[in-house]
Amino acid sequence: MCESNAYLRKQGEQDELFLEAVDRVVPYEDGLLLEDIFGKRKMIKARIAELSLVDHKIILERIE
Amino acid sequence: MCESNAYLRKQGEQDELFLEAVDRVVPYEDGLLLEDIFGKRKMIKARIAELSLVDHKIILERIE
Repeated sequence: MCESNAYLRKQGEQDELFLEAVDRVVPYEDGLLLEDIFGKRKMIKARIAELSLVDHKIILERIE
Repeated sequence: MCESNAYLRKQGEQDELFLEAVDRVVPYEDGLLLEDIFGKRKMIKARIAELSLVDHKIILERIE
């Protein structure tokens, strides 16, 4: 499977795991809607800071 | 490998392939920098409209 894990970028700290096994990411009002491969959904006021698909990483940054 | 293909969303038309085998996507000034698994880079004035990783798709939308 080619899903990725979504991490929240923290200044000066290790990135924090937000959602594992993410399949879909769709912009949603002022944030993002993430859906994992099991259909579980999470919303967050954030934007995509970086994708690194070979590393299975989606890095998110909170929008203030 | 878990790279995806990046497509440019076209209103009322089929999405247009922009770059295959994308590994990394990083915001770049007013657009995005895409890098494929071979290190080839392409820039585009666009934003991520949708990710669908199980389908290996990154959908981009041009910024006017």
